[in-house]
Amino acid sequence: MAGEIDARLEKLGITLPEPPAAAGAYTQVVPVGDLLYVSGQVPFWNGDLKFVGKVGEDFSLEEGQQAARTCALNIVAQVKRALDGDLDRVVRIVKLGGFVNCPTDYKEHPKVINGASDLMGEIFEEKGRHSRFAVGAGSLPLGVAVEVEAIVQVR
Amino acid sequence: MAGEIDARLEKLGITLPEPPAAAGAYTQVVPVGDLLYVSGQVPFWNGDLKFVGKVGEDFSLEEGQQAARTCALNIVAQVKRALDGDLDRVVRIVKLGGFVNCPTDYKEHPKVINGASDLMGEIFEEKGRHSRFAVGAGSLPLGVAVEVEAIVQVR
Amino acid sequence: MAGEIDARLEKLGITLPEPPAAAGAYTQVVPVGDLLYVSGQVPFWNGDLKFVGKVGEDFSLEEGQQAARTCALNIVAQVKRALDGDLDRVVRIVKLGGFVNCPTDYKEHPKVINGASDLMGEIFEEKGRHSRFAVGAGSLPLGVAVEVEAIVQVR
Repeated sequence: MAGEIDARLEKLGITLPEPPAAAGAYTQVVPVGDLLYVSGQVPFWNGDLKFVGKVGEDFSLEEGQQAARTCALNIVAQVKRALDGDLDRVVRIVKLGGFVNCPTDYKEHPKVINGASDLMGEIFEEKGRHSRFAVGAGSLPLGVAVEVEAIVQVR
Repeated sequence: MAGEIDARLEKLGITLPEPPAAAGAYTQVVPVGDLLYVSGQVPFWNGDLKFVGKVGEDFSLEEGQQAARTCALNIVAQVKRALDGDLDRVVRIVKLGGFVNCPTDYKEHPKVINGASDLMGEIFEEKGRHSRFAVGAGSLPLGVAVEVEAIVQVR
Repeated sequence: MAGEIDARLEKLGITLPEPPAAAGAYTQVVPVGDLLYVSGQVPFWNGDLKFVGKVGEDFSLEEGQQAARTCALNIVAQVKRALDGDLDRVVRIVKLGGFVNCPTDYKEHPKVINGASDLMGEIFEEKGRHSRFAVGAGSLPLGVAVEVEAIVQVR
């Protein structure tokens, strides 16, 4: 039986990607107490790496927001797998940590990371209201435009 | 009735700013168990953005420390609001994450972020002794010199 | 009596450094519930700072991995001191946060931070499987090549 969040995803027309495997000697999700620590996600989509380049140079703000949204979709996909498919067990998106790959004079990081934050609100509504940081990285793995990590409270 | 921390703030001559609203689709403080996750704070002071520029280029070390201190004052203001005004409920400043906007050859990040760390010690004494990281960001939101996030244990 | 992890360290030929003191107004480890928050560690070795420079410019990938491994050895040393010497009390390495000091077009951050992640697997085996982020910093304290922070679950 599809859950409440699954129904909302369908209503919103949101498809989740396959959650990517860890690109190294770590794991994508670690549960501790009622928290899930989710590793930094980059904009993979079913094995294809999207958004390789710098926001404000190779990508517009809008493209940067799409990159951040793609990272967040991967976070949700990782959480869903960790919860054996039951996203209704999400109690709260606690924190997002957002890194933007951009020139050293870039200033629109909050708007870029809103691409991830907005998605959490669409999917989880009040439970999606999280704390966060949004900063500029000097560079990012594989040259991607955005990386986002998360902490999620579950039951 | 003013609490113990309020009395200390007054004795030290420390005024807290108005805690700024979130600049996007997130929230400034998320409580989880006995922890408060505080979003990355930038050097706003009652609505005015201070310290726009790079430490070691536009700002001296001392100015960078003032920027970090201003971020930390905003953290304390956010925590106070989340605790309905009662800072005596702070059990421990658990962690500060400090990002410094600076040239790529900058080396004094620990001293810059001490501007935030020292403030926590002044206000919360032993309870203010926290873990932290201090790193150089490639860039920061709105071009600010410093951004600091926090985790705070409360009762 | 030496514990199980101490025996494994000896078998692997791994020596831990003296855990460095905090370089500022903070502390290296803060316990909260069953978690230890470990401050960002840089590649000190018994008081000597190693690996000052940028990965991909001054250092090869392999050297960057050694820098990350050195940071992780300092994390283990900090945890050991915080646990009064008993590393068998480690339940899980929950998270590593890895910052690489590198040029703005660098892409191999995951491989660099694997130097830290692999060490956790060698020492703690399944308990060492952690979540993490790996990003490029614009610059790092004292000019070091890598900085790694950690969260560790203990009993």
